[in-house]
Amino acid sequence: MKRLAVLGSTGSIGRNTAQVVREMEGQVEIAALAAGRNVEELLKQTLEFRPEIVSLADEQSRDRFWEQLSGTNLNGYRPEALCGPEGNLAVTSGSGIDIVMSAAVGVAGLEATFQAVCLGKRVALANKEVLVAAGELVMDAARDSGSELLPVDSEHNAVHQCLRGGPRKEVSKLILTASGGPFRTVSKNELANVTAAQALNHPTWKMGNRITIDSATLMNKGFEVIEACHLFDFPAKQVDVVVHPQSIVHALVEFQDGSVIAQLAPADMKMPIRYALTYPERQAGPGDRKLRWDSVRQLEFEPPDYEKFPLLALAYEVLDAGGAAGCVLNAADEVAVQAFLDGKIRFTAIGDVVKNTLDQMPHRRATSVAEILEIDIEARSVAGRLTGR
Amino acid sequence: MKRLAVLGSTGSIGRNTAQVVREMEGQVEIAALAAGRNVEELLKQTLEFRPEIVSLADEQSRDRFWEQLSGTNLNGYRPEALCGPEGNLAVTSGSGIDIVMSAAVGVAGLEATFQAVCLGKRVALANKEVLVAAGELVMDAARDSGSELLPVDSEHNAVHQCLRGGPRKEVSKLILTASGGPFRTVSKNELANVTAAQALNHPTWKMGNRITIDSATLMNKGFEVIEACHLFDFPAKQVDVVVHPQSIVHALVEFQDGSVIAQLAPADMKMPIRYALTYPERQAGPGDRKLRWDSVRQLEFEPPDYEKFPLLALAYEVLDAGGAAGCVLNAADEVAVQAFLDGKIRFTAIGDVVKNTLDQMPHRRATSVAEILEIDIEARSVAGRLTGR
Repeated sequence: MKRLAVLGSTGSIGRNTAQVVREMEGQVEIAALAAGRNVEELLKQTLEFRPEIVSLADEQSRDRFWEQLSGTNLNGYRPEALCGPEGNLAVTSGSGIDIVMSAAVGVAGLEATFQAVCLGKRVALANKEVLVAAGELVMDAARDSGSELLPVDSEHNAVHQCLRGGPRKEVSKLILTASGGPFRTVSKNELANVTAAQALNHPTWKMGNRITIDSATLMNKGFEVIEACHLFDFPAKQVDVVVHPQSIVHALVEFQDGSVIAQLAPADMKMPIRYALTYPERQAGPGDRKLRWDSVRQLEFEPPDYEKFPLLALAYEVLDAGGAAGCVLNAADEVAVQAFLDGKIRFTAIGDVVKNTLDQMPHRRATSVAEILEIDIEARSVAGRLTGR
Repeated sequence: MKRLAVLGSTGSIGRNTAQVVREMEGQVEIAALAAGRNVEELLKQTLEFRPEIVSLADEQSRDRFWEQLSGTNLNGYRPEALCGPEGNLAVTSGSGIDIVMSAAVGVAGLEATFQAVCLGKRVALANKEVLVAAGELVMDAARDSGSELLPVDSEHNAVHQCLRGGPRKEVSKLILTASGGPFRTVSKNELANVTAAQALNHPTWKMGNRITIDSATLMNKGFEVIEACHLFDFPAKQVDVVVHPQSIVHALVEFQDGSVIAQLAPADMKMPIRYALTYPERQAGPGDRKLRWDSVRQLEFEPPDYEKFPLLALAYEVLDAGGAAGCVLNAADEVAVQAFLDGKIRFTAIGDVVKNTLDQMPHRRATSVAEILEIDIEARSVAGRLTGR
């Protein structure tokens, strides 16, 4: 039985992970759970999976959790309940954990994920910041420790699957698909006036607010390009993006012989989660949807518009710059997106804020997670000033 | 240096194979060539590649070949020139051949290909009859000898590539794509009146007459389903066909986890030929076209119409029947297609002739190539009577 720790267990990926573990009946044991402040959901998961360690964002949440847990008949079960960054670290490193699902949102999960990588554990990666903000650090650590990083993001999971089609040295190009977001057919001029409600209306995936806006600006695809370069060790010029509104093909890999291998799947995060837990095996899930070919299906592809979506172009500049530029990009974007959601800046100003933050921050190379976190805070402060906060 | 024998060297696949060998500069040596009656092309190939053995269809062609070769300054080079079935056998079994390209059209190459399989050589398979007419025999022989069969047909080559995405036991379905042929959008009623010229106008591939008509009836796709079942050892119910008019995606493989792996490539037979020669390596070719994603691309998929194209449905019946039914199917179809090209029967009668031939032939299981060839002759005779010959 594999022992699993879940960082971010009450979020969308965390809950889907719990469902996959349920479906894998007896193959995986949830040994540790970390969440933010969703005490109710963590309590439910704790009572169902009986992990040895749980952790919450802060003492207040932890105390609420304890209080509610104490009122339950536990038959002698008593988890260790922790909180804060130390709690996250205990979740990923304690109890003989084999696999860490890194699904905490933001930089919160970065340190604990980094530690799991350093300890050589398998890490199922669903946290964007780990590779966008700290890609060089994390990949160096993985090479040293032998940690296996299995991507849960549908595009990177698809690349991982396509790369099975031949050895790394025969690959000429990785191509990530992008739905194109809600503004694919909106003109560049109209973009300045789109509202948060319009931007939050993603055509194919239901996700959190920030990632939905990042999908509308294509910043999310830019993050994915950065992640792909780090995760698969390819230079930026070998990682392309193609817009594919149906979100059926998740990635394509071109080999040097001209063959292109693509991965297609229904939009269901349980599939890449299960893949990350069971690799190199592929297991069937009880409720799996299959792609059907018994009616007409159109798959469209078109090149992305880098002028209309400058944040995607910016990701390539950040890759060229290297060092901690990815950390600045992520932090500035998060601040700018929040300012847009709060009605403080226009949609098109998100790119300006991010670009100006990158310009104003000195170029640095981080040698520790602590430094990454410092740069993150600094970039947020610069971006905050630029959004008029 | 790998030593290659080419059966059917002057046909389309044969000439493309010669081009691939040229491009692979010094990696492959053409040690033996067999052709039909195209003396001029074989002579050119002989002077360029200097094989040790050449073979032609009959004595007359062989004598013409000798006559022309004798008039050339050969600097002491003197190939063995043979003819007929014995010539083919010498081509595939002599001279320490490592790889046999089986690209002769019709049952002509069957015996020599079967022998190469029995000898445990790698066989690059571009001859449909080998698996359609003698699939059980050939695959049993390959299992005994350890012969590796590398498919050159773009669909099967694509399946071979997609199957690298996971072990055989995790595969739930093979899906071959079909362009749909020139009559995809023609109604069932209109089909009775289509002319040979219309049927010969294939939308995406330029091929010989018979295979072009077989593409118009979807018989060719039926043959490919039969080949796929034998080659990859899957039951008929796990091999599907989907119509894809753009012929960019050549096959898709569905795994039990719901992931579908697809192979895409430009229409260029040199690519699967090179793959079959170099596997497990993938090599770049100097003139390779790559798929481009910098303009809008539409990929359409729709289910095939089994009522409009009964020959495709018949292939599944033949698979269920097993034994030598595939041999009867192939022979009857060849006769019926020729009758259609000769203006003797309507397009829609091709299916009737084939079906009636299958009904009239006793069910048999062949235990030798000789038996296959007998059944082939018998089926041609029955089909000939049905076409009024």
